[in-house]
Amino acid sequence: MTTYATMTIDELESLRIALYQEYDAFVAKGLSLNMARGKPSVAQLELARPMLDVVNAQTDVSAYTAVDVFNYGALDGIPEAKQLMASIMEVPSEDVIVMGNSSLNIMYDTIARAMTHGILGSTPWSKLEAVKFLCPIPGYDRHFAICEHFGIEMINVPMHDDGPDMDMIERLVAADDSIKGIWCVPKYANPTGICYSDDVIMRMGALTPAASDFRIFWDNAYAVHHLDSAHPVAVMSIREACKAAGHEDLWYMFASTSKVSFAGGGIAVVASSAANIADIKKNMFFQTIGHDKINQLRHVVFFKNLDGINAHMTAHAAILAPKFEIVLEIFENNLASAGIGEWTSPRGGYFISFDGMPGTAKRIVSLAKAAGVTLTGAGATYPYGEDPEDRNIRIAPSYPPLDELAQACELFTLCVKIASVEKLLTSHSE
Amino acid sequence: MTTYATMTIDELESLRIALYQEYDAFVAKGLSLNMARGKPSVAQLELARPMLDVVNAQTDVSAYTAVDVFNYGALDGIPEAKQLMASIMEVPSEDVIVMGNSSLNIMYDTIARAMTHGILGSTPWSKLEAVKFLCPIPGYDRHFAICEHFGIEMINVPMHDDGPDMDMIERLVAADDSIKGIWCVPKYANPTGICYSDDVIMRMGALTPAASDFRIFWDNAYAVHHLDSAHPVAVMSIREACKAAGHEDLWYMFASTSKVSFAGGGIAVVASSAANIADIKKNMFFQTIGHDKINQLRHVVFFKNLDGINAHMTAHAAILAPKFEIVLEIFENNLASAGIGEWTSPRGGYFISFDGMPGTAKRIVSLAKAAGVTLTGAGATYPYGEDPEDRNIRIAPSYPPLDELAQACELFTLCVKIASVEKLLTSHSE
Repeated sequence: MTTYATMTIDELESLRIALYQEYDAFVAKGLSLNMARGKPSVAQLELARPMLDVVNAQTDVSAYTAVDVFNYGALDGIPEAKQLMASIMEVPSEDVIVMGNSSLNIMYDTIARAMTHGILGSTPWSKLEAVKFLCPIPGYDRHFAICEHFGIEMINVPMHDDGPDMDMIERLVAADDSIKGIWCVPKYANPTGICYSDDVIMRMGALTPAASDFRIFWDNAYAVHHLDSAHPVAVMSIREACKAAGHEDLWYMFASTSKVSFAGGGIAVVASSAANIADIKKNMFFQTIGHDKINQLRHVVFFKNLDGINAHMTAHAAILAPKFEIVLEIFENNLASAGIGEWTSPRGGYFISFDGMPGTAKRIVSLAKAAGVTLTGAGATYPYGEDPEDRNIRIAPSYPPLDELAQACELFTLCVKIASVEKLLTSHSE
Repeated sequence: MTTYATMTIDELESLRIALYQEYDAFVAKGLSLNMARGKPSVAQLELARPMLDVVNAQTDVSAYTAVDVFNYGALDGIPEAKQLMASIMEVPSEDVIVMGNSSLNIMYDTIARAMTHGILGSTPWSKLEAVKFLCPIPGYDRHFAICEHFGIEMINVPMHDDGPDMDMIERLVAADDSIKGIWCVPKYANPTGICYSDDVIMRMGALTPAASDFRIFWDNAYAVHHLDSAHPVAVMSIREACKAAGHEDLWYMFASTSKVSFAGGGIAVVASSAANIADIKKNMFFQTIGHDKINQLRHVVFFKNLDGINAHMTAHAAILAPKFEIVLEIFENNLASAGIGEWTSPRGGYFISFDGMPGTAKRIVSLAKAAGVTLTGAGATYPYGEDPEDRNIRIAPSYPPLDELAQACELFTLCVKIASVEKLLTSHSE
């Protein structure tokens, strides 16, 4: 196949007609597939079903914890759950608060708290003229949505293969005290799957922000979510990097077991310095008497420790890895030689990031939708939903069964081809 | 026994010496009892233990709900849990959002959201010069704590036997648009145990506040928590009262199963008008993808419906009612004829409200503490922890076993006597 870019108008016109015929055949199949979100599949969730039995009516809870998990209390979680989650985050358990089922909720609350009460005594952000966040792009739509919801201005920061552009970040945070934070998914990033290098993380910890209440929002969502368990990527600890630079309070880390146990019934965690944790707990006192400790105990009894988690995640990988492989194989087969797209090959996480020709992403998503395959919306990976080049699409291979996923990817690549041909023809006629 | 008020100084002095001796004997026992919070007892929590088995590794979830409870989604809760909680609240299930394990957290979030985003498009409260709440007293310390945390000014409203002083409330809310809410525990109120009359509730619904974003915060914490299941108190629906007055959006209702199933692992709920619920959900979208639906399902399968809840609460009452009885019996025996205190005799809920002679509450709590019995702090039932007369103490009989509770009450009444004698002697010498 020749690359599309080198085709004549006549060749493109013929190709378009052929592609439309192929597309019509897909429409006729009446597909109804959803690849919009990074949801675990039914098979993955089944892996955790035995967890439902480990804390039952007969369980002698005192064998596992001194806390009465059925009653009020334990604001920061039961010690055993703190230990378990700390082992995932690679931090001491005293740096940890285990909460409810959603790390998104913890991140939201962290921003909400800063809006109304500041951080460690700083001016509440809602009282400031402007509050800004740095947003490495492409990134996680729900991070950006929280900022937008609170009127926090977002500044795009380009993403490289080893993390965000640190030159730009260093310059910006030092110069502007209205910049209060940066969103990071350091490991198997959403959506690119890249991992931050040691150099990036050391520079992150060494940042000298003008704002004393600037924080790194380190969303460690995929800490143990390797696709090849035998060759997991190790990512440097942001805690250590901050500590090395004498910036102990610079980081918040978030995680959950939503993609380890149950996406509807996991446990979530925040980690940070002693001062930040105390600040959060002081605030939490007004918010709740404590989160669901029974569910925390379930996780402790079922997983036991980090080894237990890793063994469980190996079983996840056995389900997930073939899905990533088939997506990459179909992309390679259908798109590589045409020169109309690029994509990442993650070693973990939940997403593949696809970049089409500029100006094609919305059209691709719309074509796929009309043929029965729902993708993450074009632009979703950018602040305000605005992809300036209209080319990035987040591919979420986890949820559909393998055969449906393959069909969806065949359709997706077809839509990429159609949108690219249309784009090239439009360019020719301009 | 003569009333203390009619005793001579010599009589009071002799009494004081005798009481001190009795007190020393208590101290020598080395008690360590906690009556500070309204915690369910171990026996009560055991009643719900079988719930832990109803959603297990083998359960065919589809027999109970169409929602995949193990995955993401269902922002407002599974329909079956909405139905169950709606039946407790006596509202339609479409008026309901079922959330996590804590109604306190929902109340906190409701205020936090109003601070940053207003209510139904009103100016965010954090942008206003002043925000005030009406607080019927004595009341629930954690309601007041939320207000204090957000810098909301609290105005004390006297409580009568049938609810708060409606004349005062009507006057205040009509005159001052900075008054944005009122805290109410309409049934078996914390701490008095009183229930609002139909007249009070009708007047509540008919309020004409100057602020369009004024809301009644109706904490229906003890909706099904009768001490005599055969004779439950019925309290009029605030929803109906608001509707009758054409004020559909005036109310928020909160509840949870913390004192039905597990205090650490129940499910919590907010109910309100369609417009308010839509407003909350719009906001929740940024906060979470959904709460723990597995736990919601556990409650649905275990309780089935309101009859199941009521049957369960009858078993709770069998444990709780004797505790209330022994407290009231000891108070009656030890204090009635002395004329040094008054107390309520609730028909449900978790508390008895005790009023000593003015200026004695702090001393009573401190004496009890020194002898090993921790009570709710004096003043806790008032905004800012300030009981202007220093006389109210919240008695929480639920947690200690019956024999320990009896001991604690003997000590408590002794402390009341001592503090009263001391007070009278001080008055004489002034």
